[in-house]
Amino acid sequence: MIKRIGVLTSGGDAPGMNAAIRAVTRVALNSGIEVFGIYDGYRGMVDGHIEPLTRKEVGEVIDRGGTVLGSARLPEFKDPSVREKAVEQLKKRGIEAVVVIGGDGSYRGALALTEMGINCIGLPGTIDNDITSTDYTIGFDTALHTVVEAVDKLRDTSSSHHRCSVVEVMGNRCGDLTLWAGIACGAEIVVTAQTGFDEEEVLERLRELDLVRKKRHAIVLISEKITDVHQFARKITQTTGFSGRATILGHIQRGGSPTPSDRVLASRMGEKAVDLLMQGIGGRCVCIQQNEIVDVAIEEALSVPRESRKQLYNLFERLV
Amino acid sequence: MIKRIGVLTSGGDAPGMNAAIRAVTRVALNSGIEVFGIYDGYRGMVDGHIEPLTRKEVGEVIDRGGTVLGSARLPEFKDPSVREKAVEQLKKRGIEAVVVIGGDGSYRGALALTEMGINCIGLPGTIDNDITSTDYTIGFDTALHTVVEAVDKLRDTSSSHHRCSVVEVMGNRCGDLTLWAGIACGAEIVVTAQTGFDEEEVLERLRELDLVRKKRHAIVLISEKITDVHQFARKITQTTGFSGRATILGHIQRGGSPTPSDRVLASRMGEKAVDLLMQGIGGRCVCIQQNEIVDVAIEEALSVPRESRKQLYNLFERLV
Amino acid sequence: MIKRIGVLTSGGDAPGMNAAIRAVTRVALNSGIEVFGIYDGYRGMVDGHIEPLTRKEVGEVIDRGGTVLGSARLPEFKDPSVREKAVEQLKKRGIEAVVVIGGDGSYRGALALTEMGINCIGLPGTIDNDITSTDYTIGFDTALHTVVEAVDKLRDTSSSHHRCSVVEVMGNRCGDLTLWAGIACGAEIVVTAQTGFDEEEVLERLRELDLVRKKRHAIVLISEKITDVHQFARKITQTTGFSGRATILGHIQRGGSPTPSDRVLASRMGEKAVDLLMQGIGGRCVCIQQNEIVDVAIEEALSVPRESRKQLYNLFERLV
Amino acid sequence: MIKRIGVLTSGGDAPGMNAAIRAVTRVALNSGIEVFGIYDGYRGMVDGHIEPLTRKEVGEVIDRGGTVLGSARLPEFKDPSVREKAVEQLKKRGIEAVVVIGGDGSYRGALALTEMGINCIGLPGTIDNDITSTDYTIGFDTALHTVVEAVDKLRDTSSSHHRCSVVEVMGNRCGDLTLWAGIACGAEIVVTAQTGFDEEEVLERLRELDLVRKKRHAIVLISEKITDVHQFARKITQTTGFSGRATILGHIQRGGSPTPSDRVLASRMGEKAVDLLMQGIGGRCVCIQQNEIVDVAIEEALSVPRESRKQLYNLFERLV
Repeated sequence: MIKRIGVLTSGGDAPGMNAAIRAVTRVALNSGIEVFGIYDGYRGMVDGHIEPLTRKEVGEVIDRGGTVLGSARLPEFKDPSVREKAVEQLKKRGIEAVVVIGGDGSYRGALALTEMGINCIGLPGTIDNDITSTDYTIGFDTALHTVVEAVDKLRDTSSSHHRCSVVEVMGNRCGDLTLWAGIACGAEIVVTAQTGFDEEEVLERLRELDLVRKKRHAIVLISEKITDVHQFARKITQTTGFSGRATILGHIQRGGSPTPSDRVLASRMGEKAVDLLMQGIGGRCVCIQQNEIVDVAIEEALSVPRESRKQLYNLFERLV
Repeated sequence: MIKRIGVLTSGGDAPGMNAAIRAVTRVALNSGIEVFGIYDGYRGMVDGHIEPLTRKEVGEVIDRGGTVLGSARLPEFKDPSVREKAVEQLKKRGIEAVVVIGGDGSYRGALALTEMGINCIGLPGTIDNDITSTDYTIGFDTALHTVVEAVDKLRDTSSSHHRCSVVEVMGNRCGDLTLWAGIACGAEIVVTAQTGFDEEEVLERLRELDLVRKKRHAIVLISEKITDVHQFARKITQTTGFSGRATILGHIQRGGSPTPSDRVLASRMGEKAVDLLMQGIGGRCVCIQQNEIVDVAIEEALSVPRESRKQLYNLFERLV
Repeated sequence: MIKRIGVLTSGGDAPGMNAAIRAVTRVALNSGIEVFGIYDGYRGMVDGHIEPLTRKEVGEVIDRGGTVLGSARLPEFKDPSVREKAVEQLKKRGIEAVVVIGGDGSYRGALALTEMGINCIGLPGTIDNDITSTDYTIGFDTALHTVVEAVDKLRDTSSSHHRCSVVEVMGNRCGDLTLWAGIACGAEIVVTAQTGFDEEEVLERLRELDLVRKKRHAIVLISEKITDVHQFARKITQTTGFSGRATILGHIQRGGSPTPSDRVLASRMGEKAVDLLMQGIGGRCVCIQQNEIVDVAIEEALSVPRESRKQLYNLFERLV
Repeated sequence: MIKRIGVLTSGGDAPGMNAAIRAVTRVALNSGIEVFGIYDGYRGMVDGHIEPLTRKEVGEVIDRGGTVLGSARLPEFKDPSVREKAVEQLKKRGIEAVVVIGGDGSYRGALALTEMGINCIGLPGTIDNDITSTDYTIGFDTALHTVVEAVDKLRDTSSSHHRCSVVEVMGNRCGDLTLWAGIACGAEIVVTAQTGFDEEEVLERLRELDLVRKKRHAIVLISEKITDVHQFARKITQTTGFSGRATILGHIQRGGSPTPSDRVLASRMGEKAVDLLMQGIGGRCVCIQQNEIVDVAIEEALSVPRESRKQLYNLFERLV
């Protein structure tokens, strides 16, 4: 039976990571397993920045954004010799297995470690919902909340000034955050990697909303990395009846107290990770599929294709 | 092909009802179907308080709590002669089918109307999550949010004063709101119809949290209709080291701007309802099951037993 | 020149107390003065529960409700022999002066200590705004925010059901929280110690709002300790066209992240307190008067009569 | 005695404008004066887009951001012939006086109209707090709230990644929003038109926070129109130990439900405006000075110099 596990957060941080850390720690301690916090992701593993976690230390973190363990990216972790050092640090402390909370990149490290004899379980912690094996990632619901709140504010002021607000939303090539927010805000147009972006078509659409539909304002949500939203807003001012204004929501989307939904999801997934490690299982990641917490081989998880969300894009159009 | 539908909200109101009304209205209008708002539930149907809904009228309601159509309970609707009057009112206006947003009771009316030739589709609108055929009801996520926010506030002040906060949570015999909130808040104890309530056991547990665990505060969430929380708080003061304080959250749990999750769920369900009516289908209700929007015969839906939530109660215990 | 000061919070906690603790600590440390946290109010002073505070320890508390120092009431502090013990504890640690954050009762202790040679400065920390020498207390703005948010939620659901919401608001015989919230929520009626309560008159008013004004809902805010709001809600149901529902907001009004306004006020007052102690001044309390931070002799402060707020009550009536 | 007044909002919109419109409307109606809403600022006055306002129409707006009357800038209003047309439109409808809610520019129009025989009273509606005659403008407190909430979110994620967040804050050459937010967030550095910006000095300061103070993160708030925050963030990454990230909060600062404080301030000021017009007074603007609602001649108001805020900048430094 396993005696000591570690837990780390890696990659971009996401609200709910702390709830996951808390769940891993509490569930493990309540099963008689000691838990160690590994700080700043794989970097702390390599450098030996590793400290025991107590029940009390995770007692006030469930409602806090960010990650109390810190996070970092460590591209060198691909290098086997770097990983060897990490494994040594763990062995020195008797840590037999690790829960890795992060994105796709972090999963690869978890798989590599498992192959080196340290059982690792991945938890999907990212606001982008871009891990294809799980229906929802930890942090997505909170980021959605933040985006919708911000757009609700923009609508107030857009409506006062006959404006078109162009809002850049995160998502790292995955349009989910933009699409969900578009439905939830009652946006007029969403543009994602999945929809593609035909600038002239969007402008034409806006002219129609202005002239035919007599809309007092319009909200356009655009996923990051698709176009320069400030330039696009200027074109709106020049070629439609709306005055265009761009907003890049940026890193506020990564912060904030996790929603209850994210806290519950993180807690359920943290429990599952510990249960898998207690059964001597590694190299797998935890997912929510069809409202059930399940686990999938990391290798398999990494090759699941992205869903088209055809139905939801269709719904979006029917709601305008 | 259907030409005119009605939409009403019935029973206790829930955040997200407006998003559902909007979705029904927009999806129908975009399919060439006229939509009529029926005010104050079945009462407005009987009294003929029925008005056409335009795209614009539902344009600013997605983020508003409550229901712009008003809601009411009408026990007399069980009486066939009352229903006859309602059917007449609908026929007079050429309304062929109706979307009914509400709880179990509202579903019965929808079924009865369907049997009288007016196809009805039920949407689960209630904060209580007590409709057993669906994994989640419209309004549950928002109510959960409200409860968690309130308890987060109580924890601040409980922690300053070595207090035990006893919080009464809604749910109408269904413990889900209490259980989910308990996990999301990091509560110490939850008491629901599902757990049962052994007062002495809970007091003993609190004494242990005080003396053994040295907790600065404790949060106990109790579902409504189980015990007098004020009296129980007094017993806590008398028989444990904590000073007990009771809070009945009450109707604030029914209000508030719907969360993005509830808005998206309501929009998806509203779309489904219109699609069913367009296919000439009635007597069914819309559910989310395993993360899919599906429909179930109302009769069948009403007889699904309540889930025990054994796994989640178990998780709750492992997180303390 | 003074070398060591203490800081404590006493009485009911209030959001912004932590911001005040932080300001006292940082301003003092930046002036070369050591700071000690005294835990659980005067009790910790008597028991010697006193620890040094560092810049870092107060680094993440400005946005947290409650008080990291804990709070308690200690009626025995009126007893000179108890105070002697407290003074001994302070002297043993070289603590020459103390900042006391709390209400009227705490001020009396501060004055008594000053007379025993320990210079004390009082800061007004209470949500009740019942310290007559200051225009605003630390915590009032946040509590107002909480009340208004809760009532905004109740209005959603009241409006859906033709209801009259009766809401009990804190304030400890001072009607400010009720009155301010009444104006900010657009309530229909406010009842405070200042207005008096004529039940029949209020019911008559509600009947008029229902019948003459055709209001879909009504909000009545009542200060605590004036009437049994549940009983009153029943009377509303029985004798007016509204269905009455009572909500006692309770201790959630004491919690929550302090508003920016409260954080700034607490910071300004904390600075003033340290500046006074550095000048060798004690026995005074800090106030905001006419938008200026000033100090007043505690004795004098305790005898300032309550303002009638005639103008604001008048404004309230003109807004209905 | 005056019989008919108009009300308009002009310039950039601000949360609380609706509360002011409501107060003007209700107070006037309750005094037997008819009220007309003038849409889209002075443009609606010129074009005759003017409609009567009823008690009910302003019944649900107190908690809504933006302005239900719409707002616009109309530089041509400086042209006397344009103003003549506006005066004609008012006279045609028997509107004798107008309440103008907006900024400095709107005040000039109000003064010009007064000189043409239409008594006007200005209310300070802008988030920028840049109207020097009043201690606070309507909208400032809400914008402050929005900024602080956003920065609280950025701090979560900055702290997880050893980052320096550079945040651009609105204010139109007035540093108040930045300064107040800096104090309320516990920011490390604020840069405003009042402090000036010495880039090298700020970078040096950040190096010290990193190396000497061992801070895990830093927050720098910079007023708009001072520097390119994205470029500055890159310099931070290149020349300090922090990874720099820029966020431009943008127009979300103009939106959102007004805080209770702004709602009360707007209500008090709206009342004052109507009272002045009832006394036959025009050409003045309403201010809050030393916590009192007063009125000042617009000409005089426009020439009050900006306060240096020396004490508050000093406090900011003492809190770091």
